[in-house]
Amino acid sequence: MKVGFVGLGIMGRPMALHLADAGHQLFVYGKRTVPEDVKAKGATICGTLREIAEAAEIVILMVPDTPDVEDVLFSADGIASGLSPGKVVVDMSSISPIATKEFARRINEKGCDYLDAPVSGGEVGAKAASLTIMVGGPEKAFERVKPLFEKMGKNITLVGGNGDGQTTKVANQIIVALTIEAVAEAMLFARRAGADPAKVRQALMGGFASSRILEVHGERMLKRNFDPGFRIELHEKDLSLALSGARSLGLALPNTAATQQLFHAAKSLGGAKWDHSGLLRVLETLAGGEK
Amino acid sequence: MKVGFVGLGIMGRPMALHLADAGHQLFVYGKRTVPEDVKAKGATICGTLREIAEAAEIVILMVPDTPDVEDVLFSADGIASGLSPGKVVVDMSSISPIATKEFARRINEKGCDYLDAPVSGGEVGAKAASLTIMVGGPEKAFERVKPLFEKMGKNITLVGGNGDGQTTKVANQIIVALTIEAVAEAMLFARRAGADPAKVRQALMGGFASSRILEVHGERMLKRNFDPGFRIELHEKDLSLALSGARSLGLALPNTAATQQLFHAAKSLGGAKWDHSGLLRVLETLAGGEK
Repeated sequence: MKVGFVGLGIMGRPMALHLADAGHQLFVYGKRTVPEDVKAKGATICGTLREIAEAAEIVILMVPDTPDVEDVLFSADGIASGLSPGKVVVDMSSISPIATKEFARRINEKGCDYLDAPVSGGEVGAKAASLTIMVGGPEKAFERVKPLFEKMGKNITLVGGNGDGQTTKVANQIIVALTIEAVAEAMLFARRAGADPAKVRQALMGGFASSRILEVHGERMLKRNFDPGFRIELHEKDLSLALSGARSLGLALPNTAATQQLFHAAKSLGGAKWDHSGLLRVLETLAGGEK
Repeated sequence: MKVGFVGLGIMGRPMALHLADAGHQLFVYGKRTVPEDVKAKGATICGTLREIAEAAEIVILMVPDTPDVEDVLFSADGIASGLSPGKVVVDMSSISPIATKEFARRINEKGCDYLDAPVSGGEVGAKAASLTIMVGGPEKAFERVKPLFEKMGKNITLVGGNGDGQTTKVANQIIVALTIEAVAEAMLFARRAGADPAKVRQALMGGFASSRILEVHGERMLKRNFDPGFRIELHEKDLSLALSGARSLGLALPNTAATQQLFHAAKSLGGAKWDHSGLLRVLETLAGGEK
């Protein structure tokens, strides 16, 4: 298929390479910024985003945040300006579910389908083509794009209509952050009360406290391995999406808010690029340092 | 073995019955308050706690809170007054890890061993003899009492020295409460953002957000089944233990504190006896009610 790909960064680059390897024809943008290995796969370099939309059947976005998606889609000479009916825009960035519904509406007005398809699994998952992909949008468009998703990810779910993919990603990030924070509080309590946190974790693994987070991030805390993994600065952004969404919807998310504050504190402690399990260090700092 | 059992309530009664069924000789206290089925098993009813300690080799406590344990052990004519060297006191209540170390010290002065052995699994686990038992104390005493533990529970771990069993229980209760709260925030966000929370939960089950809580309590939230299970008023007590421990140890446990406040709110909303997954209702109330 003819696939436009906008956003060839840490995540986007390996994802685009998987599509090229599967024989899809890539259309990309930015003479100087396209990575050499993407050029080497024969990607067509377009002079404007508009040209990508004119040439490709399916346009994938993988950019940092909501304003970036808006800019790529709707600026002058942006993607929307080059669309014609029957094409599909697939936003794989992690952005606001509420803005997503508006973007989808405006793309639909061009006679095109929109899928929001954020991922989890990070750079490792992007490279291994093992991303989890949470999709919102029409089933027909989902089936059409699915062969591309299957080259980039493993656990691919159509959750519902437009916005629902982004909502699922936000829900995921809330649970992951708050569970890491919970494990950090418990591990800190155990150590300071004089117990061996490794034995405590072991005793908890079979019961109701058991989770992937206790398994993976609990072990990171024990080994004090805070190399990412998933960086605190990125998780902070995701909780910020949750909280601005909550504000629009009139919801109080007290522990999401508190945990975002701890992520802020981590950044002030030099931890923007720590793995998110480094939340433990913030709690330790509040308790007089590592002891 | 000759086993004293103090505290024949919702938990203690089925636990004591399992011991009697296994052929152990029970010594209990309180003419009017001993349940008929315990009497029917041939339990010896003692006139004072002191008499229990004089008659039994091993004395098990299963009472509500720290002051109750202190009272049973150290009041006039309490357990300690009847102990002679070589006996073992086993506190299966969920109480303060810090007070536990002091209680153990005072029991050791009598020439006796002390085990703290709190459980999780609730009334269902007590009846089914499938409790998780988290033990702190000397290994020799643990081995001696283990045959009794095995009649009451399944997942039995010696975590460390005295206090470490209670510390493990506190860590468990922190993680369970905060993970339930996390799932509740995510489910509420998903529903209010217009997604189907059942599909969102399903999409999250394979990834880093997966946990026993997302599985069991997430499903309770979807089905709005808030019959206990484990009651909010009991979990509130457990977080109170965590927070008073944290205070003594000089730790800040921000999300434990916030979650305890939500448990308080649940009680004010009539939810003292809801299952702890009823935290969702508190968040819904803050967001204008169930919608």
